[in-house]
Amino acid sequence: MSLLNQINSRQELCALDQQQLRLLCDELRQFLVLHVAQTGGHLASNLGVVELTVALERVFDTSKDRLVFDVGHQSYVHKILTGRREGFSSLRTFGGLSGFPKPSESPCDAFVAGHASSAVSTALGMARARTLQKEDYHVIALMGDGALTGGLAYEGLNDAGESNEPLIVILNDNGMSITPNVGGISRHLSLLRTRAGYFRLKKIYRSVTGALPGGKAVYRFTHRMKERMKRMLLGSTLFEEMGFEYYGPVDGHNLERLEYMLRLAKSCQKPVLLHVITKKGKGYAPAEENPDVFHGIGSFDPESGKPPLCSHLPSFSDTFGKTLCDLAREEPRLCAITAAMVGGTGLTEFAREFPERCFDVGIAEGHAVTMAGGLAKQGMLPVVAIYSTFLQRAYDMLLQDVAMQKLHVVFAVDRAGLVGEDGETHQGVFDISYLRSVPGMQILCPANQEELTDMLRKAVLEMDGPVAVRYPRGCDGVFTEVAKSTVVREGSDITLIGYGRLINNLLEAADLLERTGIHAEVLKLPSVKPIDMRPIAASVKKTGAMVVAEEAVCIGCAGKEIAASLRTSGINVPTRLVNIGDRFVTHGNVSSLYHLLGLDAASLAQTAQEVLQHEA
Amino acid sequence: MSLLNQINSRQELCALDQQQLRLLCDELRQFLVLHVAQTGGHLASNLGVVELTVALERVFDTSKDRLVFDVGHQSYVHKILTGRREGFSSLRTFGGLSGFPKPSESPCDAFVAGHASSAVSTALGMARARTLQKEDYHVIALMGDGALTGGLAYEGLNDAGESNEPLIVILNDNGMSITPNVGGISRHLSLLRTRAGYFRLKKIYRSVTGALPGGKAVYRFTHRMKERMKRMLLGSTLFEEMGFEYYGPVDGHNLERLEYMLRLAKSCQKPVLLHVITKKGKGYAPAEENPDVFHGIGSFDPESGKPPLCSHLPSFSDTFGKTLCDLAREEPRLCAITAAMVGGTGLTEFAREFPERCFDVGIAEGHAVTMAGGLAKQGMLPVVAIYSTFLQRAYDMLLQDVAMQKLHVVFAVDRAGLVGEDGETHQGVFDISYLRSVPGMQILCPANQEELTDMLRKAVLEMDGPVAVRYPRGCDGVFTEVAKSTVVREGSDITLIGYGRLINNLLEAADLLERTGIHAEVLKLPSVKPIDMRPIAASVKKTGAMVVAEEAVCIGCAGKEIAASLRTSGINVPTRLVNIGDRFVTHGNVSSLYHLLGLDAASLAQTAQEVLQHEA
Repeated sequence: MSLLNQINSRQELCALDQQQLRLLCDELRQFLVLHVAQTGGHLASNLGVVELTVALERVFDTSKDRLVFDVGHQSYVHKILTGRREGFSSLRTFGGLSGFPKPSESPCDAFVAGHASSAVSTALGMARARTLQKEDYHVIALMGDGALTGGLAYEGLNDAGESNEPLIVILNDNGMSITPNVGGISRHLSLLRTRAGYFRLKKIYRSVTGALPGGKAVYRFTHRMKERMKRMLLGSTLFEEMGFEYYGPVDGHNLERLEYMLRLAKSCQKPVLLHVITKKGKGYAPAEENPDVFHGIGSFDPESGKPPLCSHLPSFSDTFGKTLCDLAREEPRLCAITAAMVGGTGLTEFAREFPERCFDVGIAEGHAVTMAGGLAKQGMLPVVAIYSTFLQRAYDMLLQDVAMQKLHVVFAVDRAGLVGEDGETHQGVFDISYLRSVPGMQILCPANQEELTDMLRKAVLEMDGPVAVRYPRGCDGVFTEVAKSTVVREGSDITLIGYGRLINNLLEAADLLERTGIHAEVLKLPSVKPIDMRPIAASVKKTGAMVVAEEAVCIGCAGKEIAASLRTSGINVPTRLVNIGDRFVTHGNVSSLYHLLGLDAASLAQTAQEVLQHEA
Repeated sequence: MSLLNQINSRQELCALDQQQLRLLCDELRQFLVLHVAQTGGHLASNLGVVELTVALERVFDTSKDRLVFDVGHQSYVHKILTGRREGFSSLRTFGGLSGFPKPSESPCDAFVAGHASSAVSTALGMARARTLQKEDYHVIALMGDGALTGGLAYEGLNDAGESNEPLIVILNDNGMSITPNVGGISRHLSLLRTRAGYFRLKKIYRSVTGALPGGKAVYRFTHRMKERMKRMLLGSTLFEEMGFEYYGPVDGHNLERLEYMLRLAKSCQKPVLLHVITKKGKGYAPAEENPDVFHGIGSFDPESGKPPLCSHLPSFSDTFGKTLCDLAREEPRLCAITAAMVGGTGLTEFAREFPERCFDVGIAEGHAVTMAGGLAKQGMLPVVAIYSTFLQRAYDMLLQDVAMQKLHVVFAVDRAGLVGEDGETHQGVFDISYLRSVPGMQILCPANQEELTDMLRKAVLEMDGPVAVRYPRGCDGVFTEVAKSTVVREGSDITLIGYGRLINNLLEAADLLERTGIHAEVLKLPSVKPIDMRPIAASVKKTGAMVVAEEAVCIGCAGKEIAASLRTSGINVPTRLVNIGDRFVTHGNVSSLYHLLGLDAASLAQTAQEVLQHEA
């Protein structure tokens, strides 16, 4: 890394010649592979934007010009080149470098970006601010083609095109490969408006994909929506009709060409859309071959691209997918809906076995929920699988299009609670609050995967109206076998209440307390709406004190309802609610975040002791 | 109404000949004008779809085929023709006919529809259910052109086109007039793909609008976004590339032509988009001249179209608009953003005086909030004015794009609390819950318009980070002069706590209690996040009992926080929280809804008595 180590400023980057730049790109790729192999993180997308980012950092001054990422997990190269190279060994760890853009980390990070399709809206706001304040800087939105399936992107593009504000939208199009056999064509792409060439590429890509075994299915479920969008947007003169100057497509791995086009865009006094074709995983064979595997990945061996030898434990998502297949065999009305997360939510097998009952709608959570409402109203039984953090996008649809008619839609809320390394934009700590506010919503909280199976079964086959089943990212906790009853451990001195995987921490805390002579009773709530108050009241009457622990923000949390309800029943005991409070939670592994928030076993035990001391 | 009164079934409607149908349409218009003149409601849009609805009801059997409205306020004719003619004198009153589609009211109402841009998603879900269950009915989505500015519509169209599901999307395009001088052209519109003709119309319309005094500005602020969308969607072959069969445009007031086209669409085995041109207010001169005034209207004189003589009291929205103009004169960084609600939110004057600082983004609440984030990040001071119920669409953007970076964005949350006649899809009863769950969000609750001015000033000029100022629809309550302190009335027996206009009901309740010898203290909270607990604790310690009243759902409400906080401070007094509970609230005037929910003065007084009796 002789060259990369010498680049400590934009001036130094700008001084490099083309040969040095090519070397730098190689070194950047090595750097990415070596570091992500250790820390885990997003690799394939960052490998795909090495040249694009280098070109951007040379043409623009990102300490002043505003580079807005759309889903910022492809910001690694930008971070490396803007003073954060040294920090990469701490990537995504608690207190270390964030895996996403973070203005508090560097003035070169223009805006927080974790959820898709928002960059054009953000950039337009910035461009308008610039113009109104008569300042002089450039605003660039860098969005992937997947973001085009989200309605927000369309709202932003529509307004931006109309605005006539000078701003540059870069469409980073990695949905198709520039494989060697079509590379010749890509090199001949003319600078402007060569859509014919693009469609020639596309046709070849399609015929190649179609020829692979299972290629058609893969194509259908991973690329369907975004391919559709591109066909629409590029085949027509849509961008131009929206008011954009359309430049492209341009080979995203040709530095000279990229810089030329970026300078052209920079000089334009109106909205520009620059269409760049990149290859995900570019330059690292394992990632080129399996870009999906190397999208977000844990540690791996950089030589082979293989993960460290370990038994792959089934995750909650795996169990969800498997259970849903079982249910679909029994229940012909069942269908599954997801929003660009077939693999992530564990639906791959379902999609294969029940293709006509599986709907991947793209990054379109609102549509997913409303469409589910339509399915349910006409007698189907839709299960909507979306991550907790992304379901926030569909809050209004949950209210208007499902709950208001008491429709039986099951929400499989994956990644509920702390997700860890992805940090504040991805923590699933709001669903308890926003789902509980929806009238009639029932919310089940399995504590392990066995319970997930049981509860999903019950939600689908026995319950009615809207039901959410929320479960965390990853695998079971240490206590894989928890009792099915609410009281999972008996005690006499204090009641510890929780739900979901946090029950592990409470049981551990009870063990710690036991050593100090405190007999804690542990209650595991199967549902946080409605909350069955009888076992809680019985336990608290017996013990005379309680702690309620939750991976949720404080407003609308279950603890507040429990406290209020006990009070109404005239049960007044010393109480402590331990939750996220009124804050966003940073990145780091889940254990470190538990400690930060007082949700680890030791902290919970200490809190329980404090409650009892306070009482004494 | 000789003919209309005889039509009591679809069979009778289908038996009419063309001459009778023309007569029927005339009678339907008279019926609409006479009834809405008494009850108030949505008039112009319903006058525009008389022929379209008659044609739909003849071609389809809406008791079996599914007609999905997109924003259902144009469903009156449908209601009249499907057995609810007699109910129209009770339109929008408590217990009477809803102004929106309501499946619980009739099997002919396919789905709840209050928020825009959702119909295609709903219809697609229904069409998929139909196909999966091998049933045989048609699904029709009826959307206005305004709905095309919402990202959800785009998500739905994208998926629907791809799906190849037979379904019919009717684009009811009333953004342009078919005035006499261009009527000749409209009659010559060919059945299919005559976009050239459409653009000729458009050009004439533009030149006419441009020639009116102020026409350009009106055009800019009311039609800009949707005109842009239409130009894009129709100018290109976008719908076809999306996978739709495109039929149109067709004159929406020509019954024969409409029926022909609908039957054509009905026979098509794939997604069809039928583009219909209608005129808002058609057939009633006052509404044709001022379609905006007759969009949603109170009672009026059907002869003249004039509202009953009464002094127009300034509404909260008026005061907001006026204050914002004042603030913009002082603060050059201030700008206003709204989502297709310039008039409704009181921004008309602001748009006129500060056109370059006023952004109407169309029905795109998510984009409005994210764009505001971009503006704020670069040093502007955005004020986002959106109704409480529609801001639900932007919950994720509030979290990710504003609060996460503690950006100073002011949210003017209009129509907060009960809105009355529009009913369950429009009640602003969730914002307390979803806004409070956003970390760092500060929420001010003016109780009258003077306070709105003061608080808006403070939010804009003195505060930092995200601030919401929430205020109700309409005018001040009876107690226009409330004290500025938290304690608005002193008492010794019980503390009544509230915020916003509900303080009127609490003061009235205190009067009623006084007559029974109970001295109630009334506390008015200026903010529900954060909540200043000191005056509350002081008052409750003195009185020994409390009632907290709110126009908000129970989860995440202020009362729960107050109760929990007092408990933590060791203050345990008899308490009653009066709020919406876990429910949706039906339509009816606000007084009747207060009574229903126990929030009227008499009910609140009685609740206070019960709390004291319980204690005794």
